[in-house]
Order: sequence, then structure tokens, then C-alpha cells
Amino acid sequence: MIRLFVADDLSPGARIPLGPDPARYLLAVMRRGVGDTLLVFNGRHGEWRARIAEAGKRGAVLEAEAQARPQTLGPDLDLLIALVKRTRLELIVEKAAELGARRVRLVITRRTNADHANIARLQAIAAEAAEQTGRLDVPDVVAPERLERLLAGWSPDRALVFCDEAGEAEPLLHLLVRGAGGGGGEAPEGAAKFRRTAAILNGPEGGFDPAERDGLRAAPFTRPVSLGPRILRADTAAISALALWQAAAGDWAACPATAPVPN
Amino acid sequence: MIRLFVADDLSPGARIPLGPDPARYLLAVMRRGVGDTLLVFNGRHGEWRARIAEAGKRGAVLEAEAQARPQTLGPDLDLLIALVKRTRLELIVEKAAELGARRVRLVITRRTNADHANIARLQAIAAEAAEQTGRLDVPDVVAPERLERLLAGWSPDRALVFCDEAGEAEPLLHLLVRGAGGGGGEAPEGAAKFRRTAAILNGPEGGFDPAERDGLRAAPFTRPVSLGPRILRADTAAISALALWQAAAGDWAACPATAPVPN
Repeated sequence: MIRLFVADDLSPGARIPLGPDPARYLLAVMRRGVGDTLLVFNGRHGEWRARIAEAGKRGAVLEAEAQARPQTLGPDLDLLIALVKRTRLELIVEKAAELGARRVRLVITRRTNADHANIARLQAIAAEAAEQTGRLDVPDVVAPERLERLLAGWSPDRALVFCDEAGEAEPLLHLLVRGAGGGGGEAPEGAAKFRRTAAILNGPEGGFDPAERDGLRAAPFTRPVSLGPRILRADTAAISALALWQAAAGDWAACPATAPVPN
Repeated sequence: MIRLFVADDLSPGARIPLGPDPARYLLAVMRRGVGDTLLVFNGRHGEWRARIAEAGKRGAVLEAEAQARPQTLGPDLDLLIALVKRTRLELIVEKAAELGARRVRLVITRRTNADHANIARLQAIAAEAAEQTGRLDVPDVVAPERLERLLAGWSPDRALVFCDEAGEAEPLLHLLVRGAGGGGGEAPEGAAKFRRTAAILNGPEGGFDPAERDGLRAAPFTRPVSLGPRILRADTAAISALALWQAAAGDWAACPATAPVPN
């Protein structure tokens, strides 16, 4: 069944005009016509069954019929990603949508070579991935901000793990399982917060600058984590960290809350 | 420091001829010349410091000096992946190399639309990713085989998890942690083997055919696993499963062996 993300409000009988691009996709690529049904969602009103009411060369109109699924949101997880080359950045946004991130915030660090990104295109990639993955919202893609500025305005109730290739850092999965109430020799202390409202930060290919790393380590809401002994490209690190978080603390329902971990 | 994968034996004073492609990379792209040093590895003799002994238009010759790191191998993990479109397949091979898979076996299933792949090109992608990620071997990329044939010849001491979108399946991380001696209400029984010599199988975009699924579920060395509530593209599923395995059972050193898990 085709799923389309739309901006309009959804209610019984609501008419949803489609612009040339989604209309062409629906009519020409997917060969649908007047009377055919599909699913639509807008991130607010759940998923609705809709019927193609009008179809023309310049657009189409859908009519919402009935709600198929009520609105749900995945876990409150943000991905913060230093700007990388366009193809890898687009891949990261696609995967963040599939892996249930709620927001993708682009970051400029001292070793980042770029300072802009095509947000409209990235947002369209996020919407298309959300359509295919079955989620009922689309992650917001937020325009690039400088890391220092972003940390200065950080809401301290969102815990931030950052992937740190240099220096000592706890494996990400270990932190998340420990935060679940596991312990072994180690108390879960502040680790539990990394399982709730959280964010994952991946630096640029060249890594964080030492001053940036010091700033990150000094902030009260952060924790450095490691992703194993091999050097990972930025996209691999981001995808891996998102998968680990969803599996251990998110909606993949594993490493549950009472698993103790030895030190 | 530049790292190059070479086929030749490595020993003190060994001369390593480079063909036009690696020579051009080294001399023209990376602007190195006679006397400059780099690191080389062949998957057998560890990592060696080598010096550029000769450089010409048609090639170059390196001379091995001294071993920098002894040979090591990562955990014995295979990735089995149904053939998908070329760009996604190349991405999967790159990521499998970064994430420490020892072998990538290509699989033809009933819903696979392709039956061949450019193995030489995939092997080159694996080598380049291995060079960048710092590992001392390159994963073998094995030519496509039919799933039935592959299962018929399977060595039963390699446990196989397959990502199953249809039907009941335990979350992958849960299986791996349970296999670590965790238990809660559930005994670790056969789960421990999925932490040792293991393989991860990802089906095609259209999923496994019902007869294939029955065959997979019936085999004594297999276990179906889930990767959360969203529909993942083949590349996302493969990368996520590799990361989870390395984090929970491989060399990322997390979810250690005594973590109990509730039922």
C-alpha cells in the first residue's frame, strides 16, 4: 500500500491537494488513478485511508476517508551530525528516519569543511524514508548550527552521548544497559538518563578538535562513548549508534530494564 | 598514515610491486614519492611499515621494513546478504568491512531480482574500507549462491540469525544478551552459540518467500530475529545487525557475559 506524507489536516472527508511532484509519483510512477486508495499521514492526526478524488496533469486531490492508525511518536531521540559530504549526509538522514530519530540537527564543528546544506532536499529524503519505513511522523531536519552555540543553548534535560574516537570512553551499549538498572560492580548513577530523552552526536571525519572535546566532556549533560576498535566513517558511526540506542533503550525492546552488567 | 592492502608476503626487506592503480593513488593522489613510508598489510603477516623504493609512470615498488602490528583477526562473523541494487550492495560491503565482518556471502533468494554481481569491484570496495578502518584483514566477498544450496551445505557449527520481518521473532539484542548467560525467566539454552561463530542473513527487499522462511526456521542452526517495529531497507538492516552483534557479542566489549535478562 502506498503511503504519502502530507502537510494538511486529516479528518473524515478532508480534501488534500497534491502538487505536481507527488501527483506525478502517484499517477505516473505508481500508475494509480481516480478511485484508488492509499494511506496518508501528517505527523499529527495518525494514518488515514484516502481515495484519489481528482487526477490531472498539474496535480491531484485526495479525499481522506477514515483513520487507519492513531498518531504515535517513537522514542524522543535526536541525531546530531557534523556536516559531511552530500551523499553521506543524505544517507545519514535517510537512515535516521528509518531508525526512528525524531530530529536530525546538523552541526558545524571546527574540523567541518562545509557550512551549509540543502535542508529542503534533506527534509524530502526524510519524508520519503518515513513513508517507506511505516512511521507516522517525519523527523525534522534542522539547519546547521555551530557546536559551541548549540551546547550553550542546550536543554539540560536531554542527555547527550557523543562518539569519541580519542581517549577513554565507555562502549555505548554498556552505558545504556547499565542505565537500565544493571550494575555488576558499577552503580547505574546518572546512566539512566541516557535511555530517556536523549541525543547522539557524531563528529566530523577528522574528529573533534581538542578544545571541542574538552567542552563536550565538561558539560553536565554529556557522556563520551565508544563504538569499538575500528575507525568508522561518519555514516557508519551514526547508523550504528542509532541502532544500538533503539535496541537497548528505544522501541526495539531488548536489553530490558533489569539487566545487570559487570564492571 | 596511508595504509595499503597488498597480496604479497611481508618480511624484512620484502619488495612489493604495485600495479598502476595503487601506484597512481599513492604517487599522484596522495603525493608521496621515493623514500616516503606507509603501512601495508596482507591479512596474514600483520601490519608492516614500508618505504617507497621505486616510483615510475607505470607502477611503484615498496620495500617492507619492520612489522608494526602482529596479525589479528576480528570475531568470526559472516554477513549473508540477498542481492540488492548495486549502490546499496556496494554500501553494504563497505559497511561490513568497517563493522568487522570476516566474510560477505551474496545470496540469491526466490524474490531476488538479480543473479550476478561484480565480485572484483565489491572485493576492491572491501579492501579500501579495510584500509581506512584499520583492520588487518579484508573480508572475503563470496560469489552469489542460491539460498537452498547454501543452507544444504551449511556447517552446523556456525549459528545463523536471520532478520525476519514476518511472524514472531526475538529481538536480536535480546538473543545475544540472553546467550551471554543472562536469563531472567528464560534459560540461555542454545542462545550462547549465536555469540560465537556466527552469521547474519538479510533477505531481499521483498522479504523471504514463505517456503524459504519455513526452510530457514526448520534448520537446527538458525534463529529468526527482529530489528524493531519499522520496516528497514536491506542496507539499514544489515548495518544495524552487524553493529548490534559487535556491540553485544563481538569486539565492542559491551553487554558482557554475565548480564541476566528478564523474560
